[in-house]
Amino acid sequence: MVNSAEIPFVIVKAIFPGLTQLDFTGPNTVFSRLPNVKTIVASAAGGAIESDGGLIVAGTQRLTDIERCDLLFVPGGVAVTNAMNDAAFKSEIRRLAADARYLTSVCTGSLILAAAGLLRGRKAACHWAWREILPLFGAVIDDARVVRDGNIITGGGVTAGIDFVLVIAAELSGDGTAQAIQLGIEYAPAPPFNAGRPDTAPPDVLARVKSGIEAMLAKRFAAAEAAAKATASG
Amino acid sequence: MVNSAEIPFVIVKAIFPGLTQLDFTGPNTVFSRLPNVKTIVASAAGGAIESDGGLIVAGTQRLTDIERCDLLFVPGGVAVTNAMNDAAFKSEIRRLAADARYLTSVCTGSLILAAAGLLRGRKAACHWAWREILPLFGAVIDDARVVRDGNIITGGGVTAGIDFVLVIAAELSGDGTAQAIQLGIEYAPAPPFNAGRPDTAPPDVLARVKSGIEAMLAKRFAAAEAAAKATASG
Repeated sequence: MVNSAEIPFVIVKAIFPGLTQLDFTGPNTVFSRLPNVKTIVASAAGGAIESDGGLIVAGTQRLTDIERCDLLFVPGGVAVTNAMNDAAFKSEIRRLAADARYLTSVCTGSLILAAAGLLRGRKAACHWAWREILPLFGAVIDDARVVRDGNIITGGGVTAGIDFVLVIAAELSGDGTAQAIQLGIEYAPAPPFNAGRPDTAPPDVLARVKSGIEAMLAKRFAAAEAAAKATASG
Repeated sequence: MVNSAEIPFVIVKAIFPGLTQLDFTGPNTVFSRLPNVKTIVASAAGGAIESDGGLIVAGTQRLTDIERCDLLFVPGGVAVTNAMNDAAFKSEIRRLAADARYLTSVCTGSLILAAAGLLRGRKAACHWAWREILPLFGAVIDDARVVRDGNIITGGGVTAGIDFVLVIAAELSGDGTAQAIQLGIEYAPAPPFNAGRPDTAPPDVLARVKSGIEAMLAKRFAAAEAAAKATASG
């Protein structure tokens, strides 16, 4: 257990316009139930941040106003390439990461960590559809649902964030507390279909999803290449 | 498939101060990805609504401003007994429910539907810790993760909302679309522990959680009894 001290363990959740809200809200539920933590929702500009699903998250702090944190968490989202090319956002991520005990992400949040130059030679998870972008920044793809490489803990796509955050809960507060939180959020999943991964989804469903994102994949690779150049020269 | 028409299928998510955000944000992710839907986040007063976990949801519409909906969804939350005793909120829930094709809830949201007088003689799911309150309103406890009784579909505690909403996605848009959304949110859960239900959690973890909520359970029963009297006389 690392957060049993009297000084609260500070968790900063760095979000951005166009995030996928469940990447953030799944982990947020568990982070906020941990004992002895102070959790902060922050963004580059502060204030209200619009996510997918028509959800607007109000009252975020400004990243520049946060002195330091023990754990930095970055979700992904439909506008991830904007965040990957936002020099100010990445600069704050790098600053907070430098002093953090844990550097974490869910979904395409790992692409932001990678674009900030923080995953060179490190293994990371990412949403299955976008993980081939990781090597552009020298990161190593790992297709596990939750991946740990030293002090870097990353989760796969969207709902992987709940498994990811329970792993972190156990790390920070012990198995018993993680299990108590799991019981509190009744996390005994029973999906009505076995379609959550490319290797288990019906082939026609996989083909449909892949075809639906084909154009976006090309755009994201192009945007990621621009970010990779900036990272290399920055 | 019921939402293939040219007129969008209207989904209203009725939230309240002190909701459990993941009860709402899990389902919200899938609702908003369905084809041909119009989704609305609403509350009694409109505007910003504070949830657990330090999350503030901005820009909710006022329930009284919504003419009708096809599906009404109500999440639960730590302040559920306030909502159960809020006559104006319950009145709007009843009004929208009267014309809705589906009446739905997750977690203790079913207690709000029950307190609004909408579950008499109907089977419903609820968070495991609070479901004994349902019979105060004539509802029948069902401990399944997703429960269907006619046009009423209810989910269990917090994370059950993701299983619940995929069942609804299949009902509204067909299995293929539900599976494509499941693949898009990479919902292939892999909990690090098997502690998500009272019958699978380690006994000491269950005892700890039960002891932690004992006082709140007594308070909620008292508040629910007050609500039940109001419902019976209302």
